[in-house]
Amino acid sequence: MSPFTGSAPRTADWAHLRVGIADGVATVTLARPDKLNALTFGAYADLRDLLAELSRERSVRALVLAGEGRGFCSGGDVDEIIGATLAMDTAELLDFNRMTGQVVRAIRECPFPVIAAVHGVAAGAGAVLALAADFRIADPSARFAFLFTRVGLSGGDMGAAYLLPRVVGLGHATRLLMLGEPVRAPEAERIGLISELAEEGRADETAAALARRLAEGPALAHAQTKALLTAELDMPLAAAVELDASTQALLMNGEDYAEFHAAFTEKRPPKWRGR
Amino acid sequence: MSPFTGSAPRTADWAHLRVGIADGVATVTLARPDKLNALTFGAYADLRDLLAELSRERSVRALVLAGEGRGFCSGGDVDEIIGATLAMDTAELLDFNRMTGQVVRAIRECPFPVIAAVHGVAAGAGAVLALAADFRIADPSARFAFLFTRVGLSGGDMGAAYLLPRVVGLGHATRLLMLGEPVRAPEAERIGLISELAEEGRADETAAALARRLAEGPALAHAQTKALLTAELDMPLAAAVELDASTQALLMNGEDYAEFHAAFTEKRPPKWRGR
Amino acid sequence: MSPFTGSAPRTADWAHLRVGIADGVATVTLARPDKLNALTFGAYADLRDLLAELSRERSVRALVLAGEGRGFCSGGDVDEIIGATLAMDTAELLDFNRMTGQVVRAIRECPFPVIAAVHGVAAGAGAVLALAADFRIADPSARFAFLFTRVGLSGGDMGAAYLLPRVVGLGHATRLLMLGEPVRAPEAERIGLISELAEEGRADETAAALARRLAEGPALAHAQTKALLTAELDMPLAAAVELDASTQALLMNGEDYAEFHAAFTEKRPPKWRGR
Repeated sequence: MSPFTGSAPRTADWAHLRVGIADGVATVTLARPDKLNALTFGAYADLRDLLAELSRERSVRALVLAGEGRGFCSGGDVDEIIGATLAMDTAELLDFNRMTGQVVRAIRECPFPVIAAVHGVAAGAGAVLALAADFRIADPSARFAFLFTRVGLSGGDMGAAYLLPRVVGLGHATRLLMLGEPVRAPEAERIGLISELAEEGRADETAAALARRLAEGPALAHAQTKALLTAELDMPLAAAVELDASTQALLMNGEDYAEFHAAFTEKRPPKWRGR
Repeated sequence: MSPFTGSAPRTADWAHLRVGIADGVATVTLARPDKLNALTFGAYADLRDLLAELSRERSVRALVLAGEGRGFCSGGDVDEIIGATLAMDTAELLDFNRMTGQVVRAIRECPFPVIAAVHGVAAGAGAVLALAADFRIADPSARFAFLFTRVGLSGGDMGAAYLLPRVVGLGHATRLLMLGEPVRAPEAERIGLISELAEEGRADETAAALARRLAEGPALAHAQTKALLTAELDMPLAAAVELDASTQALLMNGEDYAEFHAAFTEKRPPKWRGR
Repeated sequence: MSPFTGSAPRTADWAHLRVGIADGVATVTLARPDKLNALTFGAYADLRDLLAELSRERSVRALVLAGEGRGFCSGGDVDEIIGATLAMDTAELLDFNRMTGQVVRAIRECPFPVIAAVHGVAAGAGAVLALAADFRIADPSARFAFLFTRVGLSGGDMGAAYLLPRVVGLGHATRLLMLGEPVRAPEAERIGLISELAEEGRADETAAALARRLAEGPALAHAQTKALLTAELDMPLAAAVELDASTQALLMNGEDYAEFHAAFTEKRPPKWRGR
């Protein structure tokens, strides 16, 4: 837990997500299986607020984002979101689109790795949620589709035009965002969109195993690795090298680095504290 | 057509290119087949001016760039360009090299997708024209060669040292720009340099079909997708997410987004207006 | 040789590296084979100072970085470096980590291509030295491992969190830096981490052949290609295109460009001067 807690209470119930926390691993499940986990205004807001809460509490050292039922997430709900946005004024539209972007920023900026466990379809905003994660573990039957132009919108939604070229290169990213065609697991693996291909039906448990391993490991080192990967996409080389130097100097004063050396000297496995 | 037309007339004849416009698709053909479409001063200038004209008129919703004869483009003409530049003073040299760079910027910044249809050789400046396009559709016999060091110049020509690492990664880009060796279609596909491999001899018609599909689709959504992909290569994540939010808020007030919802509700295909 | 020499003498002996220079090619060998070429404080400092000396003298036109014995480099020495850093104060820790980063900056910023010849293991700081090189030529038995989190430190060490996403994409980079797992040559080639796979046991000679070829070629063109690739990772498109234009205008006044044209006209191979 962070020593810096304020007056804001924990949220007792997340109405639009299923959330479990155990042994430093949060498991967040999109749980509208009858709608292929289509996202609602409430689900976006809960993702934004949950990630903010977990980030300030620091009770979590890894997070799995999964979907219940036949697929990961079919994206924004056509009726509840597209229909509703047609009646919104400019300020409301901006508020909605900022909220979805805040979810992506929260995934990239939270102080723990996020693992998307993808089976079946990850479409539209669902594809971007997976894209923003640090790891994408996918079933062989998984498919990604950045559908935004198919509904008359920009393929650059929720940071996709920033993130996708940095993951798969500008050529593939242009094709995927402009055309909105599905990318199946073999192609996704070939172009670097998937971190690890699971056995069929086992993306969730493979993701959970990775999350446990990360949570049991040197969690502060993982958090800083993530923070530097995120920050250094936007920094020149000289500044990145300086940031690395001060980060390592900091961690060399930490408990886990000393523990590694003690364990190595004593020929035993290290007991990581995440500090 | 753009409502913002000024006094400058349309150019009636493009002496150095073959240009056709039909149904919102411009087809621009490098047409010096006896010289493998080697580029001349006039061809560069026409590409620069044509793209500026099409961009301000907004009469075009997709553009195909192709080469007549045995190959796509062999690059700058050795006699007409290399020979001539040897006699130029510093200001003229800078003017020439700025012009070629302006062609690349125009390809990246024009408000419609550009599809390079590549067969045979795409060498030197020809390879960079293809690289700057949004899509590269290539025959299995296509080969790319960034020949600049072979003539004693920098591999960073016309933005190649900016674009190529963002398309294929820094390792491949260094190898290709430093050594100037040919990259054949299978390798080009493997490293992400090709968007789509066509059947032999069919790159032109495959590109034309994609251009028609893009022009018939939600063209404003395509244009904004391209604009965001181009801009967000140069932006930090937080700014990119904000740009996405305001772009989507804008497009959610547009005709095509409403049309998608109406068509979805009425279970019919949408009639895109490109607005 | 650079015309701009000052008072500082050449270093006569490099105690922590084996250095040979012949025909414009420097060969720098990590030579502690009994310790898998584990890096010491002295080896880092020598790499930093050697690269600075070679960069200002301009006597070198290509550099090979290799490792003697069973592998390329196992990274920072556990006893000599990890042990020692545990007793350092904050200023010393920062000094050490800045020094290692300066080696990476020197590799990226020196005015000649650097070719890493990798066989066996390239781990920790050894993997980052190879990553910073312009070319990675590797034996089929080579393996890379960014081990930093395994010792409780950030995967962003010596610019790795800047460089690796730009070489292999953000997805692969996150996996490699966060988990520290070994990447064997076939995967390294598939994701773009290797420039060229050598025959088993021949990485060193393949690297030496490439270095000779680069040194005999238009070396100023190669140096500028490298400089632009390095700089344009941190520049927007418009600035990159302007930098390319002024660079080419400069090189078009150079000897090698005129020599290319003369040789082409006379149907003979060019005699490169590197000017």
